[in-house]
Amino acid sequence: MPAVRVGVDLGGTKCLGVALVRDGDGWSVVDEERVPTPTGGAAILETITEVIRRLGRAGPVASAGVGIPGLVDRNGEVWFTPNLVGVGRVPVVVPLRERLGIEVWADNDATCAAWAEHLVGAARGAGTCVVVTLGTGIGGGFVVDGALERGANGFAGEIGHMVVDPDGPRCPCGRRGCWERFASGSGMAHLAREAARAGHGRRFVELAGGDLEAIRGEHVTAAAREGDPDALAVLDDFGRWIAIGLANLVVILDPSLVVLGGGVMVEGDLVLGPTRRWFPEVLSGGASRPDVPIVPATLGERAGAIGAALLGATAR
Amino acid sequence: MPAVRVGVDLGGTKCLGVALVRDGDGWSVVDEERVPTPTGGAAILETITEVIRRLGRAGPVASAGVGIPGLVDRNGEVWFTPNLVGVGRVPVVVPLRERLGIEVWADNDATCAAWAEHLVGAARGAGTCVVVTLGTGIGGGFVVDGALERGANGFAGEIGHMVVDPDGPRCPCGRRGCWERFASGSGMAHLAREAARAGHGRRFVELAGGDLEAIRGEHVTAAAREGDPDALAVLDDFGRWIAIGLANLVVILDPSLVVLGGGVMVEGDLVLGPTRRWFPEVLSGGASRPDVPIVPATLGERAGAIGAALLGATAR
Repeated sequence: MPAVRVGVDLGGTKCLGVALVRDGDGWSVVDEERVPTPTGGAAILETITEVIRRLGRAGPVASAGVGIPGLVDRNGEVWFTPNLVGVGRVPVVVPLRERLGIEVWADNDATCAAWAEHLVGAARGAGTCVVVTLGTGIGGGFVVDGALERGANGFAGEIGHMVVDPDGPRCPCGRRGCWERFASGSGMAHLAREAARAGHGRRFVELAGGDLEAIRGEHVTAAAREGDPDALAVLDDFGRWIAIGLANLVVILDPSLVVLGGGVMVEGDLVLGPTRRWFPEVLSGGASRPDVPIVPATLGERAGAIGAALLGATAR
Repeated sequence: MPAVRVGVDLGGTKCLGVALVRDGDGWSVVDEERVPTPTGGAAILETITEVIRRLGRAGPVASAGVGIPGLVDRNGEVWFTPNLVGVGRVPVVVPLRERLGIEVWADNDATCAAWAEHLVGAARGAGTCVVVTLGTGIGGGFVVDGALERGANGFAGEIGHMVVDPDGPRCPCGRRGCWERFASGSGMAHLAREAARAGHGRRFVELAGGDLEAIRGEHVTAAAREGDPDALAVLDDFGRWIAIGLANLVVILDPSLVVLGGGVMVEGDLVLGPTRRWFPEVLSGGASRPDVPIVPATLGERAGAIGAALLGATAR
């Protein structure tokens, strides 16, 4: 059996592992493993170790990588991970290396997803690209001149907390008007509740059982699929907020391509359409730049695990 | 005479050239030349050529670089330069190479300034840093892992047009609420006029001759030096807006250091003080990150020319 590269994407509820093998000039997923994410740093490390060991059934494990939802420094130590229960500041790479006896890397989950989309997904061939993960919050990663951008500490890409409205709604991070308050899955629900409070959106309020506080993104997209104009207006506003943040990233980083992934993107053109319509409107100097295509991610929920696996395969 | 590296910073009104020589492990400015910036692309190229030739009096010119206020692509062609009269899309590097018979580089002026501050100024030794130039507008440049970040086209660092308030004042770029509407020299004047319209700032209105539309940044800082509380309140708000944009850059790029330069920084602690006070308040996850010092630039108005000279000396 050829050697495999194993990647593990550690989520708030589940831990997804993949085993990859070289396939021509690309990589193929040859095995997969899913287990629930336990509580506490020690139990989580134990689970990651077990997932990597199990994937050894696919072939000898040459290296492993871990994608983690939070701030991960360049030595593979977690500094802050708000969505994992019972985890404080904890080293990941060093204990895994000791237990497994192989090379191990770790990085932020969205950074891993960006790396995967660059190497084997929607941004293949785009040497400088931005990959944005729209989920409950917003994560991101950048590739610059073919290298993954990590920042001084390893914390680059916390784009969901870019402030786009300093008087906007309070973010759990403590600031106001972070981009993810508007442009994530929870942002869509926020925009819909605001519309409902202003007397709009009878259909999606109805789908939410008549309770404004219960409105979620899927009520809006379900109403929009029925052609409900109020739901479509919320999605238009949602696309505008996505575009505002993307335009900021483009003027700052100048990528040749923007990739949108994450759970929100299962809605496809309902989200991508308005985003693409708004983007030229909100991009400063757009007429003086080459077009920057906005394309959907292609690796789906496995992007983070695939990118984690390839941290090792392609480490500088 | 040892060979010199020549840099030219092309401004809207003047063209500043410097000649540098190696000095231990650093560089020294050994000569300087200033001429007015003429109108039109052809005359400007002629002037730059002449400045570089004149600086040949300091020693044989090994290479030259040009800093340009606008979008400059990676081939040294200008795409857009709103502050230069009569200049459209025009190649710079190719014709200068032909005329001078030496290697020539060109980049955005603020990108050059960032490179200079990294190599020989305030950010020396900071492998990943952000340098922000606060002038009439806002420019910026980033160094990542010791390399200048250019972006796919060469347009990275247009940070003044990061939108921080989509319902904010109209920017000449056509968008609303760009960061430079609040946090540049003209932004300070805007904040002061807003305060005056709300009935505050009698002293700085007086210094502006009683005309609200005539209020400029120097009226505010002059009043603040007298201890005027309304002027100090404007500067506090100004520092908050600077901090909001810096915090966005820090969560996106994760630098170990932020350098502030440009004409606005001649006001020193009147600007730096409020910025530093606000920064921890507006930085998401600040408690979970190493501190990011905010320091003043040290190269002053010559930063752009020095950095342009060193594009050649240190090109990858």
